[in-house]
Amino acid sequence: MKTYTVALDVMGSDKGPMTVLGGAKAALEKHADLKLLLVGEQATVEQGVRALSIPEDRIEILPASQVITNYDSPATALFEKKDSSLVLALSAASAREDIVGVVNAGSTGALIAGSLRYLSRPDRVRPALAVTFPAEAGGYVCLVDAGATVDCTASTLLHFARLGTEFVKDMYCIERPKVGLLSNGAEETKGNALTKETHALLKEATDINFIGNVEGNNALSGVCDVLVCDGFAGNQVLKVTEGTMKRILTDIVKIAKTQGKQEYLPLVGELMRAYGVDTLGGGIILGAKKPIVKAHGAADESAIVTALGMVLNLAKNKA
Amino acid sequence: MKTYTVALDVMGSDKGPMTVLGGAKAALEKHADLKLLLVGEQATVEQGVRALSIPEDRIEILPASQVITNYDSPATALFEKKDSSLVLALSAASAREDIVGVVNAGSTGALIAGSLRYLSRPDRVRPALAVTFPAEAGGYVCLVDAGATVDCTASTLLHFARLGTEFVKDMYCIERPKVGLLSNGAEETKGNALTKETHALLKEATDINFIGNVEGNNALSGVCDVLVCDGFAGNQVLKVTEGTMKRILTDIVKIAKTQGKQEYLPLVGELMRAYGVDTLGGGIILGAKKPIVKAHGAADESAIVTALGMVLNLAKNKA
Repeated sequence: MKTYTVALDVMGSDKGPMTVLGGAKAALEKHADLKLLLVGEQATVEQGVRALSIPEDRIEILPASQVITNYDSPATALFEKKDSSLVLALSAASAREDIVGVVNAGSTGALIAGSLRYLSRPDRVRPALAVTFPAEAGGYVCLVDAGATVDCTASTLLHFARLGTEFVKDMYCIERPKVGLLSNGAEETKGNALTKETHALLKEATDINFIGNVEGNNALSGVCDVLVCDGFAGNQVLKVTEGTMKRILTDIVKIAKTQGKQEYLPLVGELMRAYGVDTLGGGIILGAKKPIVKAHGAADESAIVTALGMVLNLAKNKA
Repeated sequence: MKTYTVALDVMGSDKGPMTVLGGAKAALEKHADLKLLLVGEQATVEQGVRALSIPEDRIEILPASQVITNYDSPATALFEKKDSSLVLALSAASAREDIVGVVNAGSTGALIAGSLRYLSRPDRVRPALAVTFPAEAGGYVCLVDAGATVDCTASTLLHFARLGTEFVKDMYCIERPKVGLLSNGAEETKGNALTKETHALLKEATDINFIGNVEGNNALSGVCDVLVCDGFAGNQVLKVTEGTMKRILTDIVKIAKTQGKQEYLPLVGELMRAYGVDTLGGGIILGAKKPIVKAHGAADESAIVTALGMVLNLAKNKA
């Protein structure tokens, strides 16, 4: 059986290394062709592997003496913490052909900066953070960029459209993913200077299945498979969606409590599952030589399993 | 008793002139010091006034032979339809000192363009569309700009912060409204080129109570009274919030139906009321000589009442 090795940064998660290792074990059980390079503080990783009875023939341990946390500046952390699990995971993926991708649950900023430094492609394109949402109409919408590159030119956005197309093709086996451009109106004439220029480029690009402008209220409806925007606007789509969902769910709980309507409570769990609040497992950095998946910082073991499954899936569909 | 006259564009609403006139009647009943200049097709307005028994001593009718609809191009409609109710309402507000503001339920684009043409201030600042949301923490958040000016400089955003501050002061009698800057991270160092430059200007402006960057998931939480951003980003906040709310409410109805859980249905109405989906009544164009309120196009009579009450309130608090 052909196997695929993924580099997993064991440190850096808000939930601690044991949660990450728990996810590692579950992923190994789920995918027989998965192998892991566990990168982290040696004693912690070794003890965790023993405590959880992770099969030692399917892992390697790469010792790292430092950890990059969300308190470190992404810009300087890479240089100041060269022996960190994040840096070592990325450089292992760069140096070793058999490693198909990287999973990390720590600092998104450092991961994006590191993707440029250790896994940048020959064309040195700006990276994009792609986040996938369950679409209202079923299926998924992939938001590119959700916050990696906040100042974009039209040609950067054109490139993001290509990266998103490629990702959705490989990940969901959709032959010609529909690409929408986030704008402030559906008509071609609507938009700011950047989106108007990008609209023209996307229309001419024969390799992109461009369906036109998409407004914010349709962002996650499923009219497109890939929604292209700069990282600033994408970050708003991501966080406003999260904030609104959280607010409504909180309000349902409040109403249930103040009005004594316990019957509303099961709804909260159901909606959380439907929107994948817990299971989405973060985003993927596109524009690097190999897929780098950021598992949600506050995520549990299942988010690690999802993230590892994503890298594995991409590697197998590419192969 | 001192009275205040508001110019009301009777035409242009998706719900038709009778809905607008119904709102006019209800507003006159609610506010004894309100008078209205009803602008629209003469026979339609006269018949409506009679049919609804609107007190004729509190209205004037200004006949208009044309209507600007959402199908007209905002850029050309002002020139091609000089006898439209929208143009005449704005020019009446410009010409007559006793008119304190304008209410319209039609094309937002034409209204914004018209505000610049007929009611622009001597400094010719770009207009902003301010939309007010009920905040999670109670009170309101005023989003400036929600879509009027999509390409902004830092000094335009600084001006929007001032316009929003002034509006919230007059509208809600808050002495030093807290101003937040929408960004992709709470830290001062986070943001795109525009927000970083704006952050520095806001920090130095002693007339603004600047509290720093605010992320999308906090946009409507109530950490600030005024949330400043360019019209492109603001349009995303507005529409992504609307889209997410609509999606969740639709899903609750779906779940109630497919699972036979009728007990979930009252929740939908309750949440709609809480978020003011029906009662917010649109936005206000700031940066004009007089307040111009855009009632929501699909809104009912109560949105017209809210919009007229807003103009009245601002005029009285300014006086």
